[in-house]
Amino acid sequence: MKQTPNNTDEAALLVITVLHNWNLQNQRLESLLEQLSDEDLARETAPGRNTGNWLLGHLTAVSDGLLPLLGLRDKLYPWLQHIFIDNSDKSGLKFPPTSDLREFRKKVNETLTDYFNVMQPQDWLSRHQAVCEEDFLHEPHRNKIGMLINRTAHLAYHLGQLIYLKK
Amino acid sequence: MKQTPNNTDEAALLVITVLHNWNLQNQRLESLLEQLSDEDLARETAPGRNTGNWLLGHLTAVSDGLLPLLGLRDKLYPWLQHIFIDNSDKSGLKFPPTSDLREFRKKVNETLTDYFNVMQPQDWLSRHQAVCEEDFLHEPHRNKIGMLINRTAHLAYHLGQLIYLKK
Repeated sequence: MKQTPNNTDEAALLVITVLHNWNLQNQRLESLLEQLSDEDLARETAPGRNTGNWLLGHLTAVSDGLLPLLGLRDKLYPWLQHIFIDNSDKSGLKFPPTSDLREFRKKVNETLTDYFNVMQPQDWLSRHQAVCEEDFLHEPHRNKIGMLINRTAHLAYHLGQLIYLKK
Repeated sequence: MKQTPNNTDEAALLVITVLHNWNLQNQRLESLLEQLSDEDLARETAPGRNTGNWLLGHLTAVSDGLLPLLGLRDKLYPWLQHIFIDNSDKSGLKFPPTSDLREFRKKVNETLTDYFNVMQPQDWLSRHQAVCEEDFLHEPHRNKIGMLINRTAHLAYHLGQLIYLKK
């Protein structure tokens, strides 16, 4: 029995496989957030380390940044960048309420999913907006799906820290 | 200027992109391990959580498991499974010395890389050994590249914890 699809389907299947893991990591984050109270998220993940609130804001800001990087649309919450990417947890900057952060994350994810549902394999293989055309010629792995794979690992990395908020 | 490769190259490029991120996460782990002493690795990543040694053994055992799962060869260190996958950090089981764990990780990674260097895109799209042929027909994303994407996220997840050993 033939185990692999024909050539024309291969790229589409690979894209589905990458998207499957992106969705899986996001589902794990969502499930963890449902188990954590706002008080849990206010705590540090380990002594002296990032709080749950900062990591939630950070992951949301990074996902929001995918919208322009993938050439889809402007960010939904551009002001999150200053608090949660350009500055650290201990910056002294005022964070939005946890309930807002939870809401922002959901909205960003829904927006990304709506776009991802209509993107084609060749869209995913085109360059993202953080690499110029000339560099892309020599580094074709710096494409949109590569950006999503990178962000999936980034999400998993911080998920490994957020899990420490569970008692 | 055309930004995407022709159709026949698409699957190959996607595989390269996934392998690029697998290598990136492994390089990050390697770089972190070079910065951590054996004493650092003996500590818990957070109070009451997994030690560096257990996580190093766990990641090595899981990577070693890729060899049979991807249909490449038997595990190099099958006994690691009992200590670092089937049992937890606080099991009371005796761990191998940290210097051995460091060596095992290197050897497993080198072995995987040797195989990955000669695998073709259609190899990566075939089913892995943890899914039966019937299930694979309905779930074609349960292929070898999907397994590697999953293990890349798993590595990133624990890397986010190991980083807490840095002072």
